[in-house]
Parts: sequence; C-alpha cells; structure tokens
Amino acid sequence: MQATSEVKATRVEQATRIETAELVVEECPLTIMVNGHRSISLLCSPRDLEALVIGLLLAEGTIATYTDVASFHLDAETLIADVWLRDREVIPVQPGERSRASGCGLGAIYLDVINTCSPNQSSIHFTSEQVLALSQKFNKMSEIFLSTGGVHSAALCEARDILVFHEDIGRHNAVDKVVGSAAVQGLALADKLLLCSGRISSEMLVKAAKQSIPVVVSRSAPTRLAIDLASRLNITLVGFARGARMNIYTHAERITTSVSDR
Amino acid sequence: MQATSEVKATRVEQATRIETAELVVEECPLTIMVNGHRSISLLCSPRDLEALVIGLLLAEGTIATYTDVASFHLDAETLIADVWLRDREVIPVQPGERSRASGCGLGAIYLDVINTCSPNQSSIHFTSEQVLALSQKFNKMSEIFLSTGGVHSAALCEARDILVFHEDIGRHNAVDKVVGSAAVQGLALADKLLLCSGRISSEMLVKAAKQSIPVVVSRSAPTRLAIDLASRLNITLVGFARGARMNIYTHAERITTSVSDR
Repeated sequence: MQATSEVKATRVEQATRIETAELVVEECPLTIMVNGHRSISLLCSPRDLEALVIGLLLAEGTIATYTDVASFHLDAETLIADVWLRDREVIPVQPGERSRASGCGLGAIYLDVINTCSPNQSSIHFTSEQVLALSQKFNKMSEIFLSTGGVHSAALCEARDILVFHEDIGRHNAVDKVVGSAAVQGLALADKLLLCSGRISSEMLVKAAKQSIPVVVSRSAPTRLAIDLASRLNITLVGFARGARMNIYTHAERITTSVSDR
Repeated sequence: MQATSEVKATRVEQATRIETAELVVEECPLTIMVNGHRSISLLCSPRDLEALVIGLLLAEGTIATYTDVASFHLDAETLIADVWLRDREVIPVQPGERSRASGCGLGAIYLDVINTCSPNQSSIHFTSEQVLALSQKFNKMSEIFLSTGGVHSAALCEARDILVFHEDIGRHNAVDKVVGSAAVQGLALADKLLLCSGRISSEMLVKAAKQSIPVVVSRSAPTRLAIDLASRLNITLVGFARGARMNIYTHAERITTSVSDR
C-alpha cells in the first residue's frame, strides 16, 4: 500500500474552478495481535509498520527491548500484525483496562509517569547551532508532508546528523516509528535528540521519558503539562525551533550557545 | 483553571540567550462518569468542559440528544465530570471494549460508519466566497492559538456567520466541543458548515457524519480514507481553504462559484 495516492478534486481559486488531481495521504487501520490476543487497533500511515508496532509495544510496556520479540508477521491485506513474544505467557493490557486501572483526576497521569520513569541522567550537550541545523534539515526531509500537507514527522539525532526519520498521519505514531526503528537497529536512545513536527503534549513527553531520551525539540508549541513533566524528569524541552531561534522551556543547561560558551 | 499560563523559558536567537516568560497552553486530564460508571478519560484544554463532555457522549453514541442528560456536574478540582442520564440503566461502553467488538482489518471502520450513518440528505449550498470569508474570520478568532501556537479550533457556521467556536489542544476535542455546544443550545446541525483548523482524518469525518453535518472545511489536508467516507456519505469535503483558494474533494455541487452560477 502506497503512502499517498491521487484523488480527483475541484480546485477553486478566485472565481475559477478547475477539475484537477491532488495527491493525498493514505490512512489505514492497523490491528496488533500479541501472543494471539488482540492488543491495539489504530489509524496510521501504511509505511514502516514493523517500526510502528515495535515502538508501540515499547511505549505500552508490553516489551522492554526488541529482543523480547520472537516473531513479527504483517498481513499486507488485512493489516493485522501478528507478534509473538519469547515469553508466550504475556497477555497485552487493553487500552481501556489500562485507563480504568490508572485512577481518576489530574494527579494520576503525573504520578504514574513520575513513579515509572526516573529522572534522565544524561550529561549530553548540544549547541544551539546544532539544534537549529538539525531542525532545518528535518523540515526539508518531510517528503510526504511537502507533497500532501497531511503528515507529522519525527527524527532521532546525534549532534551532527539525523539517524532515524519517519512520517505518519499521527503525531504519536511518528514518534513510535522512530523509537521502534531505533530498537530494531539496536540504537541507544539515552544520548539522542528527538525532533518532532507536532505540538509536544504530555503524551509525547512521556514517550520520550520512557525511552530515556534527554532532549526533545519541536518546531511547534509545548503544553504546560509537558513542560512540568520535562522539568521533573530532567528532560530538556525545546519549542518553536524555527529559523535562527528557539525557546528552551526546561533544563536549558544541555543547550549551549556561543555566548554562554565563552 | 485558566486555558493558558506563563512559564519561564530561555529564548535563543542567533547567539543571544534571554531569560523570558512565555505563554503556554494548559493541558489537563478529564474523566467522564456516566450513571456512576467510568466512561472516558482524556487530555484536553480546561475550558468549556460541559460542551466537550456532551459532544463526546454524542460522538460515542452514549446519548442521542442533549435531552437524554438529566444532570451534569463538574468537580473543578479533580476534573471529574459526573453525568446522570434520564435512563439510569445506561452503562457506557468502554473504548477498549468498543474497539474489541468492532472486528479487525481495513473494512471494519468503513463498514461500521457506512452501516450506522445514512448518506447526508441536505441540499444546502454555500458560495465559495462565503466559505473563504468564514475561513478567514475563523483564522482570526483563534486567540489561544495566536498567543500560544498550541491549540486547534473548530466552528459551526451558517452561510454568513460563525455560530459556535471552540479551541482545544486536541483536534477531535475541538470538534466535540462545537457539537456539544450546539446540542446544549438546541442548534440544528443538518444545514451547517463545520470549520476545522486541523487535518481531516477519518475520525474527524465520522464525527461530522454522525451529526448529519453536510459540509466540512479545513485549512489543512484530508486523508484518503476521510475522502472515501465523505464521498460515500454524501458529505462535501473541502481542504486547504486558505486566502482565495480551496480544494473541494467530494460533492462539489454544494459549493457554487460565480463562474458556475452564470
């Protein structure tokens, strides 16, 4: 299944009306089975689905590392991913059950993350020039976005280059894909920078925290809850990284500038 | 709880580094109880929460109209919304159970919607000038977005004006808020135009279809699945409505232009 396809459309511009063909992004429902039990169903872009499945299973805590996976098979027609783990006794938690179990109210998500993630220990540094250069390269890489305007992208970077890059119709899926891809490649995440095209909500921040990613950068805005979590978990959170500027919301000590270096 | 708040940030621009205060958008977890049973937990912007709850219960099919609701109480501290229905026997379906019940594979969502929504019957028309004027007004109304960059917005419109407008950190929540608000006000939706700031995925289209909204307009891109559903359900889907242009993907007959009118 292609990531994009052409559809007929009527383009209206001022008073003119033209029949045209427009490139649009595909969206498909993916179902993940773990050890023969239904785990998650979600809508996504039909590309790099093994990366998405592995990233999701890591995010959900169903697996701790890629080596927990014994086999992966994707049925390209039904889009059912059939995953068997080394431990065949594992039964995936249903999203509904998980949310029932986690209690009510403002404190629940916060406490759950604070309790399961320890503060990031990384002493890695990036210069602001590196962050902005990575961000500019990232914006140019998004081929599906540039052709359709319909996707988000995410990337894992070291100081001088982008190592893993993925796109998806879902902000969260794009991050799950880069995390899953890194896991398959055996790439350590504890010294990497995560670039995201979309807004950084608490759920996005939690995904980074669970993988011990020390620096999260977006060209969009963060939410207050994401900033609070980043502050508590010792994660550097950067928003509005565009052109020659950025806002560092938490743990600015990991981003050095020429001025502060002198 | 305010929709925005100030946080300390380090603004980096070229080689300068300034300590500043930035306005960011709040994000909070809302829990909905129906007839004493837990229904949904979600993250949202803490404003217009009754509209969000009513819109969500309509979208989920827990209620058919606002008159099904006997009482609504929101605890402002825990953000637990306690909803009692006229029919106290109704037990809300858990999102997890719903997705388990709906079967696997590409056909499931498609068939579910095709089976539960009948094609839109509305013969309403809008001129392209009206659509673009509404769209321009909509872009200027988004005060939280303009100040924080962190939210999506949605609006319900008649030909000459915006009737209901809401913002939220979630694309889906913004639509649920306008639908819920309209229900509380007793506003009919079957002749209205829905404006969205975000991308139109299949889930967004389904929300409109369930409320019999005949025209959906976004300044962003639609997905292929949303286009297919709109085509089948006789809904007019417009994307990239910006400045003097737009793309009409389905049922273009509801949007007239001066040229086609002559």
